[in-house]
Amino acid sequence: MAVYTDVAADDLADFLRAYEIGDLLSYKGIAEGVENTNFLLHTTRGSFILTLYEKRVASGDLPYFLALMAHLAARGVSCPQPEKTRDGEICGALSGRPAVIINFLEGVWPRRPSAVHCAGVGEALAKMHLAGLDFPYTRANPLSVGGWRPLFEIAAPRADEIQPGLRDFIAAELDHLEGRWPRHLPTGVIHADLFPDNVFFIGDQLSGLIDFPFSCNDILAYDVAICLNAWCFEPDHAFNVTKARALLAAYQRARPLSEAEQAALPLLARGAALRFLLTRLVDFLDVPEGALVRPKDPLEYFRKLRFQQNVASIRDYGVEAAGAVA
Amino acid sequence: MAVYTDVAADDLADFLRAYEIGDLLSYKGIAEGVENTNFLLHTTRGSFILTLYEKRVASGDLPYFLALMAHLAARGVSCPQPEKTRDGEICGALSGRPAVIINFLEGVWPRRPSAVHCAGVGEALAKMHLAGLDFPYTRANPLSVGGWRPLFEIAAPRADEIQPGLRDFIAAELDHLEGRWPRHLPTGVIHADLFPDNVFFIGDQLSGLIDFPFSCNDILAYDVAICLNAWCFEPDHAFNVTKARALLAAYQRARPLSEAEQAALPLLARGAALRFLLTRLVDFLDVPEGALVRPKDPLEYFRKLRFQQNVASIRDYGVEAAGAVA
Repeated sequence: MAVYTDVAADDLADFLRAYEIGDLLSYKGIAEGVENTNFLLHTTRGSFILTLYEKRVASGDLPYFLALMAHLAARGVSCPQPEKTRDGEICGALSGRPAVIINFLEGVWPRRPSAVHCAGVGEALAKMHLAGLDFPYTRANPLSVGGWRPLFEIAAPRADEIQPGLRDFIAAELDHLEGRWPRHLPTGVIHADLFPDNVFFIGDQLSGLIDFPFSCNDILAYDVAICLNAWCFEPDHAFNVTKARALLAAYQRARPLSEAEQAALPLLARGAALRFLLTRLVDFLDVPEGALVRPKDPLEYFRKLRFQQNVASIRDYGVEAAGAVA
Repeated sequence: MAVYTDVAADDLADFLRAYEIGDLLSYKGIAEGVENTNFLLHTTRGSFILTLYEKRVASGDLPYFLALMAHLAARGVSCPQPEKTRDGEICGALSGRPAVIINFLEGVWPRRPSAVHCAGVGEALAKMHLAGLDFPYTRANPLSVGGWRPLFEIAAPRADEIQPGLRDFIAAELDHLEGRWPRHLPTGVIHADLFPDNVFFIGDQLSGLIDFPFSCNDILAYDVAICLNAWCFEPDHAFNVTKARALLAAYQRARPLSEAEQAALPLLARGAALRFLLTRLVDFLDVPEGALVRPKDPLEYFRKLRFQQNVASIRDYGVEAAGAVA
């Protein structure tokens, strides 16, 4: 949400000479990306996003998700594609930082997602999962079940400052999930962060998926569970079954969930809720006093987790079990 | 340098229906404007800037500078033009704030201005001054000589924290300028803030002037003096006579300075330096501890003021007096 690094026009024009994307007309620092600096470029050939990766991004992971975006785009998934230099490189250096140019995707993200948007994201997610099946690289998910206890240990001493009893609540949930986390569900490339602000629409039509720095290899249905939490709750925390049904039905038209995946979905959704509860909690407790950036509310995901704890089966998401869609 | 107000895509699409600028394709919060929220819009008809005015802008002044941009653009000055609604309005409301759409000017601002850039800005400034002569509205300059003492009184008690002796230095300068400020020089519409980040170039060619919220009616040569200070010093604080000559010569080709204006220019440049020294000093002392935004260095303008105090005549700017250009 901030421009960390300014770039001189001359330096940028020099940098662009390695590419075949036209001459620079303008560039604006845009208020997107929490940890990177992003510029929207206009050139004589169109619009592009220039990202400078600040220190918190492990540069070792850059090749994975840049290759992934190129792989997905080549298979018809609408997502940004890294631009290559004349020498075939997709990652250069500018202002002392790793720098990547991607094409600009038109579209706006839905601040108030409708069931139509949910159907759009369900279909796109399934197609992304299918397109990723032959992606040759792998990256473990550092924020899957094995990554939650270390986060809990960071947040535990002060968790009850956020809400009395929160520490014990999380400890019990963590024990529950670690003991039952499924080990034999289909895996593949997941987006792992497909929140509404990462999905663009023009009108009701999905125009693309963005922002792949959390992408990794993990249980495919876990990605579905993340989306259920991110897309199907109302601002008043009520679960919207119509939206869930739309999302799951559209997903299953492109990639039907197996019986095992369906059975596991409520547990995966608990895990997905705990993952965001934990990272938000750590971020929230880590904010220095007087900081201008307000972190996201961790208790939003406490409420979602409470809901998911009471889900008995996929029927509670508005969908008939065992493949048939309600 | 921040997006203060988010706007939902639906609300924005509704807002745009009053205009004839095409359908919304995308919008990005851009990191420009210290006190307003700015979005770069792409529509089916092109690129536009949407500005939401936050509370610190006196909305009474909005009509002045919106009308000014339209007036200047109609006379061939390349600057943003406010878009009108079908009803002829140029200021609407969005997210509870006054909202204005202007066309997007391509171009980049020079982080390291050259003499060619200085000539560009000199010529554009003169043409802006000429184009403003028949502008029918007036707005007094709140930051002209009459506005400096109140700023000094705010900053005086803590000025010596910034540099020992600064308080007495400013007090003496203020006395000097108040007693000698010229009263009979040509006046008109001035930009009053034509720093490099408000002037766009494509290559070496000036593509436009932006950011008119300080525009007002004042001594035209005072605007030239502001530019001398803003464009003709090097990062090491050295005055670059080549750049000054280029700026003044280009200005005078379009609008020759009278003998009285030339004679007054060093004094006006002292005033222009004091004005930015004072506002930066107030901003600097007003910053809360721990704030993320670092205010601009007031002492940069202390050094510029010291330089201008030693200028004997316009010859020190590399230009022959009395109209002839060196």
